[in-house]
Amino acid sequence: MSQIEFVDKHMNGLISDLQTLIRQPSVSAKNEGLEECARLVTKIMRSSGIKSEILRLAKGVPPAVYGEVISKQNPSKTLLFYNHYDVQPAEPYDLWNEDPFSGKVKGKKIYGRGSADDKGELITRIKAVESYLKTEGDVPCNVKFLVEGEEEIGSMHIEAYLKKYKKKLASDAVIWEFGYVDAKNRPIISLGMKGLLYVELSAEESIRDAHSSLAVIIENPAWRLLEAIKTLRDSKGRILIKDWYKEVDRFTKKELEIINSEPFDENEFKKEYGIKRFLANKRGNELKKALVGEPTCNIAGFISGYTGLGAKTVLPSRATVKIDFRLVPRMVPIKQLARLRRHLQKNGFDDITITMIHGEAASRTKTTDPFVSVVKEAADESFGSSVISISSAGTGPMHSFVKVLHSPCISIGSTYIFSRIHSPNEFARIDLLNKTTKCMCKIMDKFSKH
Amino acid sequence: MSQIEFVDKHMNGLISDLQTLIRQPSVSAKNEGLEECARLVTKIMRSSGIKSEILRLAKGVPPAVYGEVISKQNPSKTLLFYNHYDVQPAEPYDLWNEDPFSGKVKGKKIYGRGSADDKGELITRIKAVESYLKTEGDVPCNVKFLVEGEEEIGSMHIEAYLKKYKKKLASDAVIWEFGYVDAKNRPIISLGMKGLLYVELSAEESIRDAHSSLAVIIENPAWRLLEAIKTLRDSKGRILIKDWYKEVDRFTKKELEIINSEPFDENEFKKEYGIKRFLANKRGNELKKALVGEPTCNIAGFISGYTGLGAKTVLPSRATVKIDFRLVPRMVPIKQLARLRRHLQKNGFDDITITMIHGEAASRTKTTDPFVSVVKEAADESFGSSVISISSAGTGPMHSFVKVLHSPCISIGSTYIFSRIHSPNEFARIDLLNKTTKCMCKIMDKFSKH
Repeated sequence: MSQIEFVDKHMNGLISDLQTLIRQPSVSAKNEGLEECARLVTKIMRSSGIKSEILRLAKGVPPAVYGEVISKQNPSKTLLFYNHYDVQPAEPYDLWNEDPFSGKVKGKKIYGRGSADDKGELITRIKAVESYLKTEGDVPCNVKFLVEGEEEIGSMHIEAYLKKYKKKLASDAVIWEFGYVDAKNRPIISLGMKGLLYVELSAEESIRDAHSSLAVIIENPAWRLLEAIKTLRDSKGRILIKDWYKEVDRFTKKELEIINSEPFDENEFKKEYGIKRFLANKRGNELKKALVGEPTCNIAGFISGYTGLGAKTVLPSRATVKIDFRLVPRMVPIKQLARLRRHLQKNGFDDITITMIHGEAASRTKTTDPFVSVVKEAADESFGSSVISISSAGTGPMHSFVKVLHSPCISIGSTYIFSRIHSPNEFARIDLLNKTTKCMCKIMDKFSKH
Repeated sequence: MSQIEFVDKHMNGLISDLQTLIRQPSVSAKNEGLEECARLVTKIMRSSGIKSEILRLAKGVPPAVYGEVISKQNPSKTLLFYNHYDVQPAEPYDLWNEDPFSGKVKGKKIYGRGSADDKGELITRIKAVESYLKTEGDVPCNVKFLVEGEEEIGSMHIEAYLKKYKKKLASDAVIWEFGYVDAKNRPIISLGMKGLLYVELSAEESIRDAHSSLAVIIENPAWRLLEAIKTLRDSKGRILIKDWYKEVDRFTKKELEIINSEPFDENEFKKEYGIKRFLANKRGNELKKALVGEPTCNIAGFISGYTGLGAKTVLPSRATVKIDFRLVPRMVPIKQLARLRRHLQKNGFDDITITMIHGEAASRTKTTDPFVSVVKEAADESFGSSVISISSAGTGPMHSFVKVLHSPCISIGSTYIFSRIHSPNEFARIDLLNKTTKCMCKIMDKFSKH
């Protein structure tokens, strides 16, 4: 039996293993179920024939899972699969049609938090390796897995894990933890990730909430915070902090060529999100350029005062905003943080407390790297066609992998672009899980021969 | 036994009845426990010798409680006590040192939601009437009670109740539901209330939350809302909506005299709220003038996106702010609402949804009304001295009482100014409950002779 046949024949096993993973909540933001989920991953790896162990860094740090199969026929080349077993919080629960931790199959989709991001991706890779082991008793090249538990809260310790287990994790190329498939079923082969600076800004005035009639004489911290953050960006999304864009390079001609050739269905996108227009009325290549290379200043959360039903006439004592800034190559998170701090001080907002929650540099693999054509060929064969993107709009610790392992990183996977990851009703498409598993088999094969 | 002696002797009964009331949650914003609390009030009234019944308006409207004692000696004059049995929500629970619905006595204070506002006030009035009935078997004038259940959500139906039961509620003067006692133990006799316009503004962009990497191309409704409300006021609290202050009268000389003579301990106030300075660096008479006569634009609540622990990189689909505008005499809530709406439209924010939650006009009783000296004399005798204020900074449906009953309304009560009403750890001071009960006896007596 070929690997391809094996994959088709064992889709039920893939689905049921994915359901098992979804049913184990593993919300890193709440430190919930991480140990349990890590153990579950080792169990699934072992039953697929992969040697697996728990890696630890320090007490209180979520464990990582290591997986390994040494190739008998070709032990000189090593492919590393990077994934994560943690998920985003499922809130707001009331917008889910199903229990977010049920893994319910409806039609040709599996629903649940993590179904796509990233438990679905992980399972395709495990099953691709299993298909080799159960048909040929060997893999075409060495295969390693690194599955971390803090990706959704910024992979704070991935670099420390990479450094501590550098020898164990040594590899020649890395398949990144996720990959999108566009509305025309073309996988997007992404060569880079944006960076991130995630901060919490707080204004505090009085030591306790007060009756709102006192708003005539007590400053309201919500107003204060709002005035402060209003200075950060203009209504078109342009960030107004001094030198914010200093390290942002213009696109090269080659980059622009790739961007221009990338498909982007504006109407499909508008329909999916129910929006009438894009930010600042962007269109065409502007949209694609923004996704690949534009820094952002996004309010991820804002809370102050009474937000329940009805009216409460309260003057809140505190207001807090969570802001995530996406960064592009050469922007250094702590340098940008210093610029933010200076900006607030200069504008008279030195009473605003800034807490850095996470920082991550951007990274891009060169378009000329030979690993790019390995992945491209495998994707084209498995899906009919594929799209190369010079960077994802999202963030991941790719920079750390390149720094420690010196390996090219490429992102390819099974996540339908409108899979609602990080949102209610996240789902994975079963057809894409199937094709991606086969694509992973082809990547191993082509990589071993390259 | 005199009424004064009776009150002193039966303080334990007062405290235990107040605890009983506190232990019955009655949060009107959540429609929680209102029927139960209304019944409890009739029970306590009856056991104090007051004829009591439940008044109803329509299905779904919280009931009001009516109480009545007709004087044998002087049935030609009627005093009405206005109170409410509902309370503000107790959130945030984690800032309470005790269960907010325990009514725990610690030292010389009773803690709990409603201990001061307004269950504590109500109990002083019931007990004052009881002290007459149990010592003399009569009251010096007719006494009526109207205890509503929607004060904390804006007394939406009080005017309808007043109109429906106009004959039953007919009276010559009204003692308002609350009254503050300042840090020097002087009751503040307040002759007016500010008005209120309470609105909820919402911005909605996409039909679902999205991954925050899409912030490069999808508008963030939190930014949008923030830009909209930033145009409403300047950093000193001045409202920037066109014609907002059009009906605001300047203070008369007489009013300024009263305001200037009012005490206000700035340091005490700063200490209580833990603030370093007042809004816009106001001081002295500016503070007092603001409390009495300045309109406000207060953010009572703001919510958008993820506000839990840690980081979530989400682009929210929706943002909502609750704003309360305090109004002064001659400002008409729906007229101000129209001005707000026009302002947002004119500034390009016609996508912002405005929901009016509550509107209430301001009211002031004339300083020359004879009822003022009745209350002033009773207060001076009971507390040693007292302070007259031409208006409270807070809001109540005083305007409706004046309109329907044509009676002067005066606010006097037992609420220590730093009682943390509407906030965690609300409390009532037992000494003030005692003095205020005696003061209510004196008001009845003096009013009957006036």
